[in-house]
Amino acid sequence: MIPRMASVTGVKEWNNGELRSLDDYLVGEEPLEIRVGDLPISVTMRTPGHDLELAAGFLFTEGLITSRAQIASVRNEPDATQNGANRVRIDLTPGVVLDPEATRRNFYTTSSCGVCGKASIDAVRVRHIAPLAPAPAPAALAPAAGSVALPPAPAAGSTALPPAPAAGSTALPDAPDTLLIDPELLCQLPDRLRAAQPVFERTGGLHAAGLFTSAGELLILREDVGRHNAVDKVIGWALANDLLPLGTSVLMVSGRGGFEIVQKALVAGVAVLASVSAPSDLAVNLAREFGMTLIGFLRGRRFIIYSGAGRIASAMPPR
Amino acid sequence: MIPRMASVTGVKEWNNGELRSLDDYLVGEEPLEIRVGDLPISVTMRTPGHDLELAAGFLFTEGLITSRAQIASVRNEPDATQNGANRVRIDLTPGVVLDPEATRRNFYTTSSCGVCGKASIDAVRVRHIAPLAPAPAPAALAPAAGSVALPPAPAAGSTALPPAPAAGSTALPDAPDTLLIDPELLCQLPDRLRAAQPVFERTGGLHAAGLFTSAGELLILREDVGRHNAVDKVIGWALANDLLPLGTSVLMVSGRGGFEIVQKALVAGVAVLASVSAPSDLAVNLAREFGMTLIGFLRGRRFIIYSGAGRIASAMPPR
Repeated sequence: MIPRMASVTGVKEWNNGELRSLDDYLVGEEPLEIRVGDLPISVTMRTPGHDLELAAGFLFTEGLITSRAQIASVRNEPDATQNGANRVRIDLTPGVVLDPEATRRNFYTTSSCGVCGKASIDAVRVRHIAPLAPAPAPAALAPAAGSVALPPAPAAGSTALPPAPAAGSTALPDAPDTLLIDPELLCQLPDRLRAAQPVFERTGGLHAAGLFTSAGELLILREDVGRHNAVDKVIGWALANDLLPLGTSVLMVSGRGGFEIVQKALVAGVAVLASVSAPSDLAVNLAREFGMTLIGFLRGRRFIIYSGAGRIASAMPPR
Repeated sequence: MIPRMASVTGVKEWNNGELRSLDDYLVGEEPLEIRVGDLPISVTMRTPGHDLELAAGFLFTEGLITSRAQIASVRNEPDATQNGANRVRIDLTPGVVLDPEATRRNFYTTSSCGVCGKASIDAVRVRHIAPLAPAPAPAALAPAAGSVALPPAPAAGSTALPPAPAAGSTALPDAPDTLLIDPELLCQLPDRLRAAQPVFERTGGLHAAGLFTSAGELLILREDVGRHNAVDKVIGWALANDLLPLGTSVLMVSGRGGFEIVQKALVAGVAVLASVSAPSDLAVNLAREFGMTLIGFLRGRRFIIYSGAGRIASAMPPR
């Protein structure tokens, strides 16, 4: 196991009506800042490892450099994060000058990216996130062990919104959760999503996002080549129809429940996010911090509960 | 069929040794520019359709607005493209002001994005793309029919590199292609890629990119949560090892062969790009314009040839 490329965490597996706790591997996801000299060029969410190659390859495939000879050195540079390994600095051979237009064109940062996982979380925190109703089973899931991407505690000295309590914290008011999802119903959502996809789904190249009521009724479905776009289309529809926040809905996405998707769903107040595939460690940490229920590998009559198990009706451990 | 969400094009299917021509649906992919008033906020590669919802949802989930009431109007605005529908303008309610920091943070454009498909193609053209050896079967594939995303001819008046001939054009010198891939070997690549993935692939959340010789030998494998990062890591490795351009290699990716992946592969001179999933229409058009061999749905003993069939050994039609 290469450090930080993956981490282990405790999750719950629902399988054909049986619930069990197990350890699961999560793929690592952290931002990497690429600099040329002192100039920030790009921030990309990536899995740590081979970062020097990533930075050099990025500069080349984005047309900022055209040969290896233009690179004088590539190295990690300390950053403000815990492990200090989320920045790569490339120095160019004397005489090689970046095209300012290409640089401008290539500098991109989404607010889902920061210079470190913590910065990313802070970026989420400053947004206006409607509070989620607390899940009724506190401490249902342990914090991710072995992950070094995110500090487990909220940042001290944050000047943004008050730090959100960690998932399962008893600091939240002890109100009963209004949202309780039947796991049998959850298992039907992928088929319902697929059945509703229009004819051009035959292209095979589309991601889908669907918003369901807690009774499993499909409210809206949108498709896009970009997973995040499909989610934005759904949330834009909900915004236009005055349905936000989506605290009583289930958002189902066809691809991974990655960090960016969890972030967007949280902003819209989504309480339950389900996907057919795997989330990253950063996505799981974010969901846990904000108390979102995060479901992955929803296939057939099986799924994994990464966070907020209290909203899954029969997922509460027998007493 | 909703216009521009999908298009039909002629492709070749290789299935267990049999080759046939058929029409295939491609998902639409075009850039959308989102503006607030006259200020460009973001360019995103998306499937056309529900663009107003996408723009509103994006502003909301990225934290630029916090309620529907802050939006005065959302509308399409003419742009310079053929269909003039790749820009959405949102005007805010009087008194609502964008946070400049949030705006700065959210404006992102990769060079894979332009204000229109044509601009994107131009952006590729200005990069230093090593010429690919022409595929030996000219006019093996017809240009995409029904697609309105890209003008079929190179832009007039381009000041960048001389326009690349369209795929299958006879303007290229009639040199024999040095690269000819055995379709039986192609079918083995997904398994070889999977077999080489390290232990943490068990997370299920990783994309892989692998570089193979024309004899099917795996040169390098990289994994990442981001498909484009896995490709950049592979190309960065090749750059560091002085192996560019990759005109005699096959690049195999685990996810879709989307526009951004085709673009990065072209910059590295990759002649054959194979993926297990579907490309978009923009990706196919780009591959055809530059004469790259683009393979999709490579699963079991079947695949689709979207472009450059001449590099697939037995894919030449019987005479």
